[in-house]
Amino acid sequence: MSKIAVLGTGMVGDTIGSKLIELGHQVMVGSRTKNNEKVEAFVAKHDGKASGGTFAEACAFGEIIFNCTSGAGSIEALKSASEQNLNGKILIDIANPLDFSKGMPPSLSVLNTTSLGEEIQKAFPDLKVVKALNTMWCGLMVNPALINGGDHSTFVSGNDTAAKDSVKTILKSFGWADKNILDLGDITTARGTEMYLPLWLRIWGATQNGAFNIKIVS
Amino acid sequence: MSKIAVLGTGMVGDTIGSKLIELGHQVMVGSRTKNNEKVEAFVAKHDGKASGGTFAEACAFGEIIFNCTSGAGSIEALKSASEQNLNGKILIDIANPLDFSKGMPPSLSVLNTTSLGEEIQKAFPDLKVVKALNTMWCGLMVNPALINGGDHSTFVSGNDTAAKDSVKTILKSFGWADKNILDLGDITTARGTEMYLPLWLRIWGATQNGAFNIKIVS
Repeated sequence: MSKIAVLGTGMVGDTIGSKLIELGHQVMVGSRTKNNEKVEAFVAKHDGKASGGTFAEACAFGEIIFNCTSGAGSIEALKSASEQNLNGKILIDIANPLDFSKGMPPSLSVLNTTSLGEEIQKAFPDLKVVKALNTMWCGLMVNPALINGGDHSTFVSGNDTAAKDSVKTILKSFGWADKNILDLGDITTARGTEMYLPLWLRIWGATQNGAFNIKIVS
Repeated sequence: MSKIAVLGTGMVGDTIGSKLIELGHQVMVGSRTKNNEKVEAFVAKHDGKASGGTFAEACAFGEIIFNCTSGAGSIEALKSASEQNLNGKILIDIANPLDFSKGMPPSLSVLNTTSLGEEIQKAFPDLKVVKALNTMWCGLMVNPALINGGDHSTFVSGNDTAAKDSVKTILKSFGWADKNILDLGDITTARGTEMYLPLWLRIWGATQNGAFNIKIVS
């Protein structure tokens, strides 16, 4: 079992953090402010099995860090955590750089010849960034069996093979079958999974059901 | 059976044109120049069952037009066809705005708050643009049964419901099951399917197999 930091107190952070606690990990939830109401509610809900702190405190605590902040605030959040709390650690980047300023559904603020995953990796060269799980509703991230008997696809992107292996192990503990985890390659391949979001948003819009995923068939 | 124009003499145009001929449609292939070698080879291969001409001649001939040109050249090709040959007709836009100038795999030249489908619709307001089939290798477009028993997903985007119904009928004649054709909505939803291309390219890169597609599962 690991010490894991979960950055972000929204629905994604709550879902990931709760699953990690269920699996027996030690979890510290990080937010901008120390006495954040959502963090306190999360800690209370988990009956003392979780703790809360600033982004810096959570990153100092965690051996592995989940980035569940909104994409627009991710780099700022990590900067406030300070580099010595990040270096050498694995960051699982679930965030998407959604831009709500140009109408709905949102567009992307970072894309095409770069990606949020790459921008985080560039800003923190000694952090082992692995983009993962950003292509679906958070309920499926930690419980793929909710649909199609768990048989659908998820992706990992990152420069460090050992870090990707560790992330795959976590994904398997969430219920993902090995055959459904596709390693796309280095962190530049995060462009692919982040740019899928506009299609995800339109499928959701057309079907009015967020509990879907794609399965690669060949 | 319909008179159909196929614009573009690459692999996609060849594949679509050949399938349409096999289904009994009258096909004219359009290219920039009248006596194009690829067009002549296509006509010869189909034993007189196809004809060839300029973009303008093909669009004048066709009741329905398939845009199989490269995305970078699509609007120019349609401009050279002249508006009176396009107005009121259905254009099935298969092209993707791939940009090969910024390294491989290609990025997109038009994206995020617009799409090639939308740009074509804006340039030709009386054309009924339906984005379709641009999310897969052309071999699967006309033969979905090649993989997974034909059970995988395809999309349509467009402003004209009757035009989308006509396109769905063509897709069904290609072998697509009704349940696997998802109408995403108006032409702005082409942003979704065009921006999926970067993920398509990375899946292809990771698996070294272009004969794949995604199936939406829920």
